[in-house]
Amino acid sequence: MSTQAAPSKKTEPHGEEVTRLIEGKDERLKVMSAVPLVLSTPLGLLAEQRVTDKKYLFVRNIQDLPQGMTLEPLPLKGWETELVGLIRPFRVVIRGEELLGMDQVEYEMILQCSGNGRSQYKGVPGTPWDQGGVGNVCFAGVPVKAILEKYNVSIDPQVKFVTAEGHDLPMGLEKPDFEHSLPVAPVLERSIFALKLNGEPIPGIHGGPVRLVTPGLFGTMQVKWLRRLRFETSESPNFYHATEYRVPLSLLKPGEKFRFTMENSRPTWDIRLMSYILAPESGAKLKSGAVSVSGVAYTDGSVPLESVLVSSDRGQSWRPATFEIPDSPYAWYRWSIQANLKPGVHEIWSRAIDALGRTQPFDGSIFWNPNGYEWTGVFKVEVTVD
Amino acid sequence: MSTQAAPSKKTEPHGEEVTRLIEGKDERLKVMSAVPLVLSTPLGLLAEQRVTDKKYLFVRNIQDLPQGMTLEPLPLKGWETELVGLIRPFRVVIRGEELLGMDQVEYEMILQCSGNGRSQYKGVPGTPWDQGGVGNVCFAGVPVKAILEKYNVSIDPQVKFVTAEGHDLPMGLEKPDFEHSLPVAPVLERSIFALKLNGEPIPGIHGGPVRLVTPGLFGTMQVKWLRRLRFETSESPNFYHATEYRVPLSLLKPGEKFRFTMENSRPTWDIRLMSYILAPESGAKLKSGAVSVSGVAYTDGSVPLESVLVSSDRGQSWRPATFEIPDSPYAWYRWSIQANLKPGVHEIWSRAIDALGRTQPFDGSIFWNPNGYEWTGVFKVEVTVD
Repeated sequence: MSTQAAPSKKTEPHGEEVTRLIEGKDERLKVMSAVPLVLSTPLGLLAEQRVTDKKYLFVRNIQDLPQGMTLEPLPLKGWETELVGLIRPFRVVIRGEELLGMDQVEYEMILQCSGNGRSQYKGVPGTPWDQGGVGNVCFAGVPVKAILEKYNVSIDPQVKFVTAEGHDLPMGLEKPDFEHSLPVAPVLERSIFALKLNGEPIPGIHGGPVRLVTPGLFGTMQVKWLRRLRFETSESPNFYHATEYRVPLSLLKPGEKFRFTMENSRPTWDIRLMSYILAPESGAKLKSGAVSVSGVAYTDGSVPLESVLVSSDRGQSWRPATFEIPDSPYAWYRWSIQANLKPGVHEIWSRAIDALGRTQPFDGSIFWNPNGYEWTGVFKVEVTVD
Repeated sequence: MSTQAAPSKKTEPHGEEVTRLIEGKDERLKVMSAVPLVLSTPLGLLAEQRVTDKKYLFVRNIQDLPQGMTLEPLPLKGWETELVGLIRPFRVVIRGEELLGMDQVEYEMILQCSGNGRSQYKGVPGTPWDQGGVGNVCFAGVPVKAILEKYNVSIDPQVKFVTAEGHDLPMGLEKPDFEHSLPVAPVLERSIFALKLNGEPIPGIHGGPVRLVTPGLFGTMQVKWLRRLRFETSESPNFYHATEYRVPLSLLKPGEKFRFTMENSRPTWDIRLMSYILAPESGAKLKSGAVSVSGVAYTDGSVPLESVLVSSDRGQSWRPATFEIPDSPYAWYRWSIQANLKPGVHEIWSRAIDALGRTQPFDGSIFWNPNGYEWTGVFKVEVTVD
């Protein structure tokens, strides 16, 4: 885990962006720079744009690619990604330049750290994410399926998982390398070798020049600096996949010890339903009367959002916000509602519901897990009205 | 399926109860008697009592035990249930009388047909259940775990499922016999050899003298007239378990064809979250002003109910009902709320939410399945206010 790694000088090249992000917010900088390369986005900045600008987009890297610590793109020329495992031919090398000539697919989609909201859980170590480890971006690239077809690759029917490795290096000699396995079905259905972020070559810090992107999955599964895909019968037993980035299949009590195995837990694959109130921000001082409350919400893309219910009286009444329906099922929905607030201190709550009837629990800690992944509790802000 | 079976004279012995149940509701009788032994409970009767009286309790039998077509108890003396499979000793016979001397455990719990609400799905054949295939009852008996201990039965660690058979007979020579498999964990945790229903010996029609009861599971899994438990490594390939009483793991479009396999579907085990409006009933004519709206709601018992939200303006606003918290997590919660209705035609909607953030979808047909199981949509009644 990142907390086990000593603060690294590798954060330095990113210094300029840090300053831009946290203008007037020195405290946040202090917290976030205690671990390498974790930059959260203030929620007010997320509210400004439907598509999150790369200069505001959160950063969370478990490992670094030394030349990748930049918001500039890395050269695609000479970049190679290999396909190996239970496939024929047994090894195929995909050269970056060749991807450019192929048909590109773009997804507007949520990019969210699975640890986002971790600070809402009680007593969880790890990167103390607030709620800013999320953005709504556009990734474009070449579908894995199209690559397999172009290179005449056939997959053994026994293949159940695809494990992705990056060119990034372990944080130390004694540290395990980072990789993740995905079920083969979504990879064949919608994964892309992403080359562009928001219409431009993917910045080094965000995993360019080639990133494996599968909309609907958490950020950790969007493997950066893609070096190798392994087509295999089972999930990787790798530390980061088989021990970290997992949640128990059973409910734990907050603080309960848990020994992760492949059988008693699952990877943090599918994004959890969430809503965020982006305006007003928590702590805001408002004038009494009509207040515009707005934010975003999203599902894992498998089904549409059904409602965003908003309460300004601690759940005594809920009203559905109006929202825009995005073209992409993987993008966020921007919502808004008018509230009438009398003088005093108020909490405003939001809860999304999707078409399957999944919603955010009041007590998000019911899903407490030792690493604090997949926070999905009702979103709350406190405001003071004069 | 019951629809394949010809109407049977076996419904006759139950005729007295039919008359009592459907007083003034001849149409319901007609529908329900088209298949043998299906009796729904009018929702108004469910509202009257916290614990559903046996004389009102719905009946749904796939097969009949000839001597069991009665609301009277059957003799426990001479009733034998055997345990077989991967256990030591290899066969154990439990005599009914011996159960009486053992410590009894009682569960107040939901008994619900997994096909309840089927008529809400579009174009689904099968017993046209309205919403009355449910009740809240008390089953008491001896825990399976205690029986295993008393008879010194040890279970092979490879056992994953327990399959239950009844003494009832197939509906015809060419028909498969009825049985169901349960995961071994809940059986050892909470299943009982139930001897009593609401404090009295279980009526024949409800599976006495010995019924396997596991709170939190659908009615079909509460195997009647218990004859044999098989401790095995895998689920039964039996028609009723491996083909019927299953729902797809994927979402289907209403009307879509589906070929059930053990891999692409799951049994209708855990009860789905539901709320019901029991008063006013749909079609009621009310006077304008304050109206008391009340009903019941329940979860599968794994987590508590969080809220019942009620709307009388088609979802434009929702308010949480107040509810009693039952002692048993498997029982229903009775809820009520005051609504203020102006003259006109109104729909009143209820939707339960549990502590995991599971709720009832607006469009319950999102879970459409060929046999119409596990209806869990928002509950709606239409009333006219003068």
